[in-house]
Amino acid sequence: MSKIFFTPGPAQLYPTVESHVFNALKENIGSISHRGKQFQVIYQEADQNIRALLGVPQDFKIFFTGSATEIWERILQNTVESHSTHFVNGSFSKKFYEFSTELGNTATKFEVPFGSGFDINTYEIPSETELICVTHNETSSGVMMPANDIHTLRAKNPNAIIAVDAVSSVPYPQFDFTAIDSVFFSVQKGMGLPAGLGVWMVNDRCIEKANALKAKGKSIGTYHSLPSLLSNGSKFETPSTPNVFGIYLLAKVTGDMLQKGADTIRKETDLKASKLYAFAEKSPLLDIFVQNPAHRSPTVVVANTTGEASDLIAKLKTKNIVLGAGYGNYKDKQVRIANFPAVSVEQVDWLIEELSKV
Amino acid sequence: MSKIFFTPGPAQLYPTVESHVFNALKENIGSISHRGKQFQVIYQEADQNIRALLGVPQDFKIFFTGSATEIWERILQNTVESHSTHFVNGSFSKKFYEFSTELGNTATKFEVPFGSGFDINTYEIPSETELICVTHNETSSGVMMPANDIHTLRAKNPNAIIAVDAVSSVPYPQFDFTAIDSVFFSVQKGMGLPAGLGVWMVNDRCIEKANALKAKGKSIGTYHSLPSLLSNGSKFETPSTPNVFGIYLLAKVTGDMLQKGADTIRKETDLKASKLYAFAEKSPLLDIFVQNPAHRSPTVVVANTTGEASDLIAKLKTKNIVLGAGYGNYKDKQVRIANFPAVSVEQVDWLIEELSKV
Repeated sequence: MSKIFFTPGPAQLYPTVESHVFNALKENIGSISHRGKQFQVIYQEADQNIRALLGVPQDFKIFFTGSATEIWERILQNTVESHSTHFVNGSFSKKFYEFSTELGNTATKFEVPFGSGFDINTYEIPSETELICVTHNETSSGVMMPANDIHTLRAKNPNAIIAVDAVSSVPYPQFDFTAIDSVFFSVQKGMGLPAGLGVWMVNDRCIEKANALKAKGKSIGTYHSLPSLLSNGSKFETPSTPNVFGIYLLAKVTGDMLQKGADTIRKETDLKASKLYAFAEKSPLLDIFVQNPAHRSPTVVVANTTGEASDLIAKLKTKNIVLGAGYGNYKDKQVRIANFPAVSVEQVDWLIEELSKV
Repeated sequence: MSKIFFTPGPAQLYPTVESHVFNALKENIGSISHRGKQFQVIYQEADQNIRALLGVPQDFKIFFTGSATEIWERILQNTVESHSTHFVNGSFSKKFYEFSTELGNTATKFEVPFGSGFDINTYEIPSETELICVTHNETSSGVMMPANDIHTLRAKNPNAIIAVDAVSSVPYPQFDFTAIDSVFFSVQKGMGLPAGLGVWMVNDRCIEKANALKAKGKSIGTYHSLPSLLSNGSKFETPSTPNVFGIYLLAKVTGDMLQKGADTIRKETDLKASKLYAFAEKSPLLDIFVQNPAHRSPTVVVANTTGEASDLIAKLKTKNIVLGAGYGNYKDKQVRIANFPAVSVEQVDWLIEELSKV
């Protein structure tokens, strides 16, 4: 029996990936020019499918980078002259904050303990904030910020650009794109693809800000600045030779997800999440880590282990089930169970069955 | 009959790539953690094979990025406080120069006409130069700078860091790594792999310079700064989730190339190049573009076409042979024929035979 990865990224590949890889080889996707029609069609297909899957309106542009980590750096370079504000509740949101200070900005950090979420209305965003950074789903701690919490930021902060790191939640969330300015993710999590590609959605406000900073003489980077991504992206090209193979696979897998239906995927995600949390609630092996049910991530379930996490992981491995370890210092005390679209309801049932036998 | 790509990148895949892709799928390379032992072994295998293939000494480190274009930006960020000097003789060396000014540096440009090389000893590098940038092989024009010309730069400029863009020549060149400080390439050219991965080799001088700039308060970027790449790379890890699939394929294909032998590959490259140039010399269809034989690239053969380049390209396409078009403004007047290791002597003979029939 082949392995199933419940790791939160890199993760289980979407079931159709293998056949798309075979087709990519047949169609010479590894050799085609990134300046030719065939590539433009692939980019456009990915663009259209992502829009349909996530409800991205036409006034947003979709660009490709090497990773979501790269997008943290690029959005800070392109939209912040001096001040960003960050909601920090785990290792990834913290890195996003640190990137801002590393780039020479001053940055405000609203930090809550690992495993906690935010009571969003209690925070006063500093008026000098140019960019508000929220992490929709903290992959390290399993805390999800309700999309509506993010949307409420706009009303009180109409001038700041709002960027949403949705790395480990896409394609689950349904954002109101009129209340946010940028969303980004990487493909090795919810999309079920091999790593090596970041997807960056931005509206005109982001691009205008980048142009304004450039006009003022601030460095906004080079090939992956927003103006450079835009001038190439508007003809479905990229500034440099991209991960063509990855973009092809993304176009195909998002097509498969649309065929299944975005709503079906969301409903299945909810069903699988409820099974996993219900099991964790009653299992003597596990304790749900995120206390507030409203903040529990449906896509990355984190649980404290009553014994050594490595023992549990090792036991499941003998059944060809790969669980994620806790992040960083929580490695020995927690497991992370990814609940991405690549994993079926039956596979979650099987995981629960095997966990029950331990 | 399946297509053969003589395009200068993305290019023909190395013959073993397909079987490595199948193995990668079997071994779940798309799902494994980039923080686990299995990935470290892959990184180390790629590292060792690249060293053996290119003769890279142990005091150089090998890092991965999203592309070689990214490396242009990163090396400028990490080793230049204010001044770089560039040898510009085509579109790619020019972009490298432009990146420096975009990043706020002053930069000196020694420029010769498209299709020309440099009489390297006639140039006086400004004393304020921190980084000398040379493009070993101009993919746009088919001009190669002899490796020994690059090596002579060191004696006259002992204090400047010397960076060599070897994007479309690796694994052909044999550099004296005591006379240079950094070499980089991308994998979709001579390595015969799908695009989406840059390989960056640096010595301690580069890293020390990055640390010194950081200590002075200059921004050297974030996750892909040299200190960050080093602290992760020293344990065969990467700062962010990399293109694991691409690094796996690179490890395997460089292993295959070593099996064949680096010298054999170089000799075959010379043989195929001499056949291509000899044919272009006598063919009524083609005129060798690079006048100085010492500057003609063995890996990217560029020729003016006596008729419309697109006609010739279209005719060859009916035979399943894909030629590269001329770069930029030369699209209608030139063809570029890549002579990378993925293409065999027999395939070059076949190309020449088909060209003879036109």
